[in-house]
Amino acid sequence: MILVFKSEVPEHQLAATQQQLDRLGFTYKPVRTATGCLLIILDDVSTFPSHVFSQLPGVEKAIRLTSQCSLVFKNGRPSVPVRHVSIGGDEPIVMAGPCSVEGEAHLLQLAHSLKDAGAHILRGGAFKPRTSPYDFQGLGKEALAYLAAARTATGMPVVSEVMSAEQIEQAFDYVDIFQIGARSMYNYELLKEVGRTRRPVLLKRGMSATLQEFVSAAEYIMMQGNLQVILCERGIRTFETHTRNTLDLNAVAALKTMTPLPVLVDPSHGTGRRELVRPMSRAAIAAGADGLMIEVHQQPNAALSDAEQAITPAMLKDIIDDARRIRAALSDAHTNQALHPAGIHGAATVNCTPT
Amino acid sequence: MILVFKSEVPEHQLAATQQQLDRLGFTYKPVRTATGCLLIILDDVSTFPSHVFSQLPGVEKAIRLTSQCSLVFKNGRPSVPVRHVSIGGDEPIVMAGPCSVEGEAHLLQLAHSLKDAGAHILRGGAFKPRTSPYDFQGLGKEALAYLAAARTATGMPVVSEVMSAEQIEQAFDYVDIFQIGARSMYNYELLKEVGRTRRPVLLKRGMSATLQEFVSAAEYIMMQGNLQVILCERGIRTFETHTRNTLDLNAVAALKTMTPLPVLVDPSHGTGRRELVRPMSRAAIAAGADGLMIEVHQQPNAALSDAEQAITPAMLKDIIDDARRIRAALSDAHTNQALHPAGIHGAATVNCTPT
Amino acid sequence: MILVFKSEVPEHQLAATQQQLDRLGFTYKPVRTATGCLLIILDDVSTFPSHVFSQLPGVEKAIRLTSQCSLVFKNGRPSVPVRHVSIGGDEPIVMAGPCSVEGEAHLLQLAHSLKDAGAHILRGGAFKPRTSPYDFQGLGKEALAYLAAARTATGMPVVSEVMSAEQIEQAFDYVDIFQIGARSMYNYELLKEVGRTRRPVLLKRGMSATLQEFVSAAEYIMMQGNLQVILCERGIRTFETHTRNTLDLNAVAALKTMTPLPVLVDPSHGTGRRELVRPMSRAAIAAGADGLMIEVHQQPNAALSDAEQAITPAMLKDIIDDARRIRAALSDAHTNQALHPAGIHGAATVNCTPT
Amino acid sequence: MILVFKSEVPEHQLAATQQQLDRLGFTYKPVRTATGCLLIILDDVSTFPSHVFSQLPGVEKAIRLTSQCSLVFKNGRPSVPVRHVSIGGDEPIVMAGPCSVEGEAHLLQLAHSLKDAGAHILRGGAFKPRTSPYDFQGLGKEALAYLAAARTATGMPVVSEVMSAEQIEQAFDYVDIFQIGARSMYNYELLKEVGRTRRPVLLKRGMSATLQEFVSAAEYIMMQGNLQVILCERGIRTFETHTRNTLDLNAVAALKTMTPLPVLVDPSHGTGRRELVRPMSRAAIAAGADGLMIEVHQQPNAALSDAEQAITPAMLKDIIDDARRIRAALSDAHTNQALHPAGIHGAATVNCTPT
Repeated sequence: MILVFKSEVPEHQLAATQQQLDRLGFTYKPVRTATGCLLIILDDVSTFPSHVFSQLPGVEKAIRLTSQCSLVFKNGRPSVPVRHVSIGGDEPIVMAGPCSVEGEAHLLQLAHSLKDAGAHILRGGAFKPRTSPYDFQGLGKEALAYLAAARTATGMPVVSEVMSAEQIEQAFDYVDIFQIGARSMYNYELLKEVGRTRRPVLLKRGMSATLQEFVSAAEYIMMQGNLQVILCERGIRTFETHTRNTLDLNAVAALKTMTPLPVLVDPSHGTGRRELVRPMSRAAIAAGADGLMIEVHQQPNAALSDAEQAITPAMLKDIIDDARRIRAALSDAHTNQALHPAGIHGAATVNCTPT
Repeated sequence: MILVFKSEVPEHQLAATQQQLDRLGFTYKPVRTATGCLLIILDDVSTFPSHVFSQLPGVEKAIRLTSQCSLVFKNGRPSVPVRHVSIGGDEPIVMAGPCSVEGEAHLLQLAHSLKDAGAHILRGGAFKPRTSPYDFQGLGKEALAYLAAARTATGMPVVSEVMSAEQIEQAFDYVDIFQIGARSMYNYELLKEVGRTRRPVLLKRGMSATLQEFVSAAEYIMMQGNLQVILCERGIRTFETHTRNTLDLNAVAALKTMTPLPVLVDPSHGTGRRELVRPMSRAAIAAGADGLMIEVHQQPNAALSDAEQAITPAMLKDIIDDARRIRAALSDAHTNQALHPAGIHGAATVNCTPT
Repeated sequence: MILVFKSEVPEHQLAATQQQLDRLGFTYKPVRTATGCLLIILDDVSTFPSHVFSQLPGVEKAIRLTSQCSLVFKNGRPSVPVRHVSIGGDEPIVMAGPCSVEGEAHLLQLAHSLKDAGAHILRGGAFKPRTSPYDFQGLGKEALAYLAAARTATGMPVVSEVMSAEQIEQAFDYVDIFQIGARSMYNYELLKEVGRTRRPVLLKRGMSATLQEFVSAAEYIMMQGNLQVILCERGIRTFETHTRNTLDLNAVAALKTMTPLPVLVDPSHGTGRRELVRPMSRAAIAAGADGLMIEVHQQPNAALSDAEQAITPAMLKDIIDDARRIRAALSDAHTNQALHPAGIHGAATVNCTPT
Repeated sequence: MILVFKSEVPEHQLAATQQQLDRLGFTYKPVRTATGCLLIILDDVSTFPSHVFSQLPGVEKAIRLTSQCSLVFKNGRPSVPVRHVSIGGDEPIVMAGPCSVEGEAHLLQLAHSLKDAGAHILRGGAFKPRTSPYDFQGLGKEALAYLAAARTATGMPVVSEVMSAEQIEQAFDYVDIFQIGARSMYNYELLKEVGRTRRPVLLKRGMSATLQEFVSAAEYIMMQGNLQVILCERGIRTFETHTRNTLDLNAVAALKTMTPLPVLVDPSHGTGRRELVRPMSRAAIAAGADGLMIEVHQQPNAALSDAEQAITPAMLKDIIDDARRIRAALSDAHTNQALHPAGIHGAATVNCTPT
């Protein structure tokens, strides 16, 4: 770790920083150059979050040389339990359901089909964030009651999106997992609010959020004491228009090296095209995802929203079957341990940007 | 198909277009609106390329309503044979080798390791496209001789990048597959040049090329009579900086619906990070890729270029093993035929942009 | 306007749509093709919003052939009055101040300097949306009091960001314009909330929001009856890393063709680099912006946040001088009216995507 | 400047690097940390290109702390003379003409109109890079003769695109400035080829090229001894689809701090929309551009290519008039010299990424 000081740094700030480093037990070495002043920390600081250093008096930037950008929660690999389902464990977990809840009978019938197909958790939109104010905005509280009824009937836990403190309160008795949608990932007040609930949170990646920002959003929730965060990659916004979004499966593999949180993938929004949902579901599981979130409708083309990307329960069954096959095929895959990436000294470190 | 005419279209152009449609045997219906003139073609034109219509006299745009953007080469699913290797067949094909060829002994030793690990084709850069003119530019013709020697010693066919007509000529006797790099995908003169060689071409996607542009680049090659084109997704340029590029596996699944050409994936450039190469290789095969192109080096950190993304031969062996397991697991995967995407009327069509 | 029906559309839906079109007084023509059914509307519908058509029974998409994507609020060009300042009028309006309010004396002194430099409105962050939960989050309510004190002392109206209903309430007595930040542009509940206040709103473009989405966000506010919306371009997220964001001045010119709302530009966030603030301020005014929002600090390098992009009051004075010079130079610029873009039949229409 | 060594660096490499630094006359200080070895160079190295350091034995990265990414050609501000026209001098230079040359009489008539409107240089496509092989590819050598004839008739120098060594040869006697198009910016063989001609080169930015890559492409040309390079921003590829590309005027201001080369802007490709060409031309000049490149056609909607973005000669006249007004208005703009960005110590340096 190298601390670069502001060029006009006064002596008393330098001294203050050194005192704090002393207090933390670090060994360091000051170096004065033609253009300013540096402090080189000689210890391995890979387990300390960067802000510990970047916020010291007079420090302009803290350059980390030898480790991944760190996270506070680094040890262990806790799965997130939701009723009888465990997210992040051995089995790939599938959340499935309609984009928007459209009616009670319709939802109930669909929920039974989903359960038969092997889905674990029922998703369904009650409050819908729509780009245009003229579009269908969801059935709201009515939909929540239908979801709870479907939960009672099938035993499947329920996940649904909330967009405000008021909606959290309304949904509290009906929903097992609060979903924070892509458009809300930067809504820090909302993140703190769900953080205070101590209920599992499915956090979707913002459509142009970097992985570091995504992880920081998770930390907003976790800092309130709620560690039950499930990350969900759902496609990012790029120049490509053939697909609705560009599903970034690099993110799945990278998040697994950055955090111990479970990572799900939403191939429905990630592609926006029904015919790509199955191959991308396969790819997500192979990349290491802990599960999938998929839009299903009994007559996809008649859906009130996102009609082009919904699949049928029968297609879902095939996808769940695929996921299990891939997980099984890889579960005992051979690894040349001695030459594993971690075995190459300094491997994962060279691209780490200054924090 | 709807033909929209320029608003000031003269009568003789309208008549000319109708004559041509007559000649082609189409049934159509002219409609005059407050703002101009349309011709609705009543036949299914999904097997005709769009330019047939968009270039008719007076036509401003041709809007395709019911099919995927079409390709001239639509039937069959020909694999590309390279010596004894078949690309696009049952087995996932792995091209592996150093970013740049660094020396004869070094390459020979590596090639034997790669063959032992199960790789099919030897890759190695002789001519290197480097962003900065001050960077190492490759060993050039010398490297070609080393590649050919390694081919003789191991029996592995060789793929290497060419960037000019002159380099094609130089490489002709040494290389089995000409690689067109991402930076050259829009180099139409070069595409025509390799199209005239009648030798297999590995065409990499440009770093900000749309899928439609990628397929059009393949058509530049194929129009010269060379149908042996292998597409290769290698990551696109997005806002995300954690990875060197954003590997777009949506592209793999989508290209499979747009063209019959084999599709490979390069997870080395697609991630730029050694620790992500294995999970993304798994994901690529699961998404339906016909093979992989991977940078391998015996001491990755000592490589002259792309050191952070190269893996060892032992890691490659694990990846090839993974690929076979995934392919086997999915080869007999169940499909609910009756409810398959293609079974939903009009499924894949709604996003097709006007051509 | 062409209405494309879902291929399986039942007769009663077709009939219902035709009845509604009759009721609206449109002339139309049904056409049946090999692959489905169309309705061609023969009237000029350019003044009708698209959702009027796309939500008719059975309609899959509504393709607009001859006009810009429409906005409900289309006539007139109302400026937004804020106390004695008029945004959107003849004079370019400059909002200036610190990224975060850092203290009362500091703010007061700065506000006087800004007024002397010619700034019209005082900006200052009380509640700060920060990517990392560990970063400085703003002084909150305390800062609001300082802002109001500075307003009393200088007579400058105040703009400050709010991120929740609670903050709107807290800020209500202290702030003249509510700012909705880029991260909140998709926060529809918040948009409705400020829409209910009937107070001017400065709406920043989301970092990956399309122009259509940006305009739709404005409509969320306006649908609550609050028409006093000021748009602000502040840079979008692209692959380029040399600048913090890519300031999109195309947006300024395009928004002026899409909506009558005033458009401001924030070159501080749009570039993230102090040395680019002046040239991009000039460019923004030349592109047609109604004003600027700029971060100013008396000792930029000592600012608590965004230190690299803040400028001094003296630099601001130069920029305001530039803006006036450019506005004056262009105010009587010649225009060859007969050959103006609008004079070319069909000019601005060909790229209009299906809505 | 801090040199970070590879963690496994052998002693003899360290020694070799120190010897070379000694030879270059630098003072430095080695520091050994828990995770490796560093050399801190104590001198100001802002005038040295980064590769001098990054290519020293054993060096993994060279982190520059106090200056802009450097360019070899840093002093002076040479304009590029083309016959009687000087690009990069006091007057904004306008290159104008058709996307593609369509015929001799047509071009001649247009050239006279352009000259009358005040344009300085005639542009016209002879060889056209087209995404689809089915599109019109330009008139080729025939068009070159027409361009030369128009030059003789009007006295305007001519600029036209070349895409291969063969085309350079064909165009040599007809063209005053070789244009390298956006699709060819990474075609290093072509860059070297035009570098060998010693004729002015207009280099367009690649559609997803970073500014550093753009400058590196210019260096490829300049390293052959040809310093007459004119840069041209023409829009980058982003998620926004309202405009054909996103014109990045940040690039204009930033390039002016990175290199002494003249910078032009192409608002025709940068927007793809006729109605945005004038406002963005104004903005480009205000941002500091040395000139414009604009597509003009006498009947824009009848153009064989890029019809939606071409303007008429009369509109061009207005734009040239605008450019002169803005340049004049800003030429004597006041600058508070003492507080100018350069006056803030360390100003432009904090974002400089490791090279």
